[in-house]
Amino acid sequence: MTVSPERTLSSDLSTSAPTREEIFASHEGGKLATGLSAPLRDARDLAIAYTPGVAEVSRAIAAEPALARRYTWTDRLVAVVSDGTAVLGLGDIGPRASLPVMEGKSALFKTFGELDSIPLVLDTTDVDEIVETLVRLRPSFGAVNLEDVSAPRCFELERKLVEALDCPVMHDDQHGTAIVLLAALQGACAATARDLRSLKVVISGAGAAGVACARILLAGGASDVVVLDSRGIIDTARGGEKGTLAAETNPRRVTGGLADALRGADVFVGLSSATLPEEVLATMAPDSFVFALSNPDPEVHPEIAARYAAVVATGRSDFPNQINNVLAFPGVFRGALDAGARRITEGMKLAAANAIFSVAADDLAADRIVPSPFDPRVAPEVAAAVAEAARRDPAAGVTEGDRR
Amino acid sequence: MTVSPERTLSSDLSTSAPTREEIFASHEGGKLATGLSAPLRDARDLAIAYTPGVAEVSRAIAAEPALARRYTWTDRLVAVVSDGTAVLGLGDIGPRASLPVMEGKSALFKTFGELDSIPLVLDTTDVDEIVETLVRLRPSFGAVNLEDVSAPRCFELERKLVEALDCPVMHDDQHGTAIVLLAALQGACAATARDLRSLKVVISGAGAAGVACARILLAGGASDVVVLDSRGIIDTARGGEKGTLAAETNPRRVTGGLADALRGADVFVGLSSATLPEEVLATMAPDSFVFALSNPDPEVHPEIAARYAAVVATGRSDFPNQINNVLAFPGVFRGALDAGARRITEGMKLAAANAIFSVAADDLAADRIVPSPFDPRVAPEVAAAVAEAARRDPAAGVTEGDRR
Repeated sequence: MTVSPERTLSSDLSTSAPTREEIFASHEGGKLATGLSAPLRDARDLAIAYTPGVAEVSRAIAAEPALARRYTWTDRLVAVVSDGTAVLGLGDIGPRASLPVMEGKSALFKTFGELDSIPLVLDTTDVDEIVETLVRLRPSFGAVNLEDVSAPRCFELERKLVEALDCPVMHDDQHGTAIVLLAALQGACAATARDLRSLKVVISGAGAAGVACARILLAGGASDVVVLDSRGIIDTARGGEKGTLAAETNPRRVTGGLADALRGADVFVGLSSATLPEEVLATMAPDSFVFALSNPDPEVHPEIAARYAAVVATGRSDFPNQINNVLAFPGVFRGALDAGARRITEGMKLAAANAIFSVAADDLAADRIVPSPFDPRVAPEVAAAVAEAARRDPAAGVTEGDRR
Repeated sequence: MTVSPERTLSSDLSTSAPTREEIFASHEGGKLATGLSAPLRDARDLAIAYTPGVAEVSRAIAAEPALARRYTWTDRLVAVVSDGTAVLGLGDIGPRASLPVMEGKSALFKTFGELDSIPLVLDTTDVDEIVETLVRLRPSFGAVNLEDVSAPRCFELERKLVEALDCPVMHDDQHGTAIVLLAALQGACAATARDLRSLKVVISGAGAAGVACARILLAGGASDVVVLDSRGIIDTARGGEKGTLAAETNPRRVTGGLADALRGADVFVGLSSATLPEEVLATMAPDSFVFALSNPDPEVHPEIAARYAAVVATGRSDFPNQINNVLAFPGVFRGALDAGARRITEGMKLAAANAIFSVAADDLAADRIVPSPFDPRVAPEVAAAVAEAARRDPAAGVTEGDRR
């Protein structure tokens, strides 16, 4: 199946884009609030929720700490954690300025995953201090969504947090993006009758998202993935995550830059702000997929990409095929918490991608390779698939007492 | 005015005390939830609250950090912080078991002060580590309510937090109790036409609450306050807070134990679990006030106390004259945050006590010396008085830009 030439690439959002005044007015006082699961109307309610009644509950948890999951809000509470070092496309703007983004994330957790969540922004960028802080606060939450932490620190921070905390931890900029990308690639393959395993994939950008996307595509069946950063195609001479990744990718040992990588390639995944020139795009294989995911400015305008590609996706809501993390993270955390998982494993991430793809599968088209974020089936199906994967995977750390 | 002999000391609460089953059922899943100030219904809402709209707000805060107060929830967000070392009467039961109490506290902040609040319980009891943790998290909240931290660590912790954080910090077990006690003593004096300044006051208990109560009574006009702990009347040979306090109290240089202190005294304030024997009670001055505040078991049963005292108060909701912190802390924090105060000063605490007393003043009786926690006038009047006091007091640190 190919793209119908008459489809329109802009939606009604672009014709009524929110004004600056509207945006600031809606942020007045912040976007979050805390509420009560039951109102306190009289002295009797107080005696239940506070003294003396609460003492019974505290005493029970003191005797059996696992009861905290049942009798406190932590079992469904995600800490949205950031140090503000890589906020959206704005860079290192600090924790205070990152807060509106974290509040937005918490709002998405609530809306799509029915999970409570609190933004915890940190006035330190030291990886070990961040880990230490969250270890001390561990009894206060049930999971950690890391957000907008700069690379390569984010790799070390996530690894150390996963080691230090006995609860689900996920850096969404890495794995949320990767999960949705895999689902989108599965959707594009199904919509165009292509086989993911035979595709030549090029990922432009080797930061947090690029590394995770390369890994999940390999785990999801891709065999030919080439990754570039601003210095060109990464190779094993690079240090850190990039050197390790180079050894797992680029089986044809392509060298050079974007033009070299894309010649004859089937899939472009843009995860940096590097432009994709039209003349390079023209050298890709026929019926290619162009996922130009940079926000707010895609690597190539989707109307130009559509002249060459069979499937075009962006990160924007005002074009078709929006590849947006919100399809993944609410369901991923919900499923992990539902299962009582201590880890978010690779298997759980693959299960999330498959679930997103499955929701879209009955209604796929080249301009509909992923479901809408507002499709009410997405989060519950992702959650169910992730929870099921967690229960089957010993690495997820679900113990018998946690099963529900 | 004296106590009418026919008044009944038990209310309807005692006849329908919550059952254990009811208490646990109401704690299932915890008592808190996060919510949104506006729903996310469609792509346009997402574009305002999340990308790309939120970037405008983040960029504005990056340029002018003070705008975080206006465009995030932190300006009305209280962190309810505990290490679980002195939880209710249960003692050092740890952070997990303290969580239901902290959730209850957050529920009270919301119900009575219309303030958002998040429980942050810490898996460390090291004072400097707690301070360090909250300093790192400083951009995440607007004020700190310390709760259930054991004495004497609580004094050092509060002092260091006040020094380290540029936001209101209050250990409620100290100052919330003290504020309400002063209001209650003012109420008892007014109801019985006594003069607070001439009363001989005995405080049994020199922990967190005892020290703060002695200080606020002195600041509120009391001139003769004697403080005891389990070793007897404190003197200047004691170290730490107790030695300092001894120098400020006990002008008649009374020595000995509870019986020595109470002989001829006008006011008993019970803040420890030490029993007040009836034969000692009988030696107090005529028309005395007995505030037996230990929970759940008062130092003396209020029915016995009423045989000797003109005014009897407890910490319990099932007897008249409940002296409960909830009369103070929601309005104190609300007022401090409304004013943009950086400190909660002695003047603000006295203003809070006076406001609580004023609400009760038009309808005082010996069995109605404080307003009901559910009197809707209390928190707004306390908040207004505290905010006004903050604006007048340079030590509160209100700057011109913060005035509202």
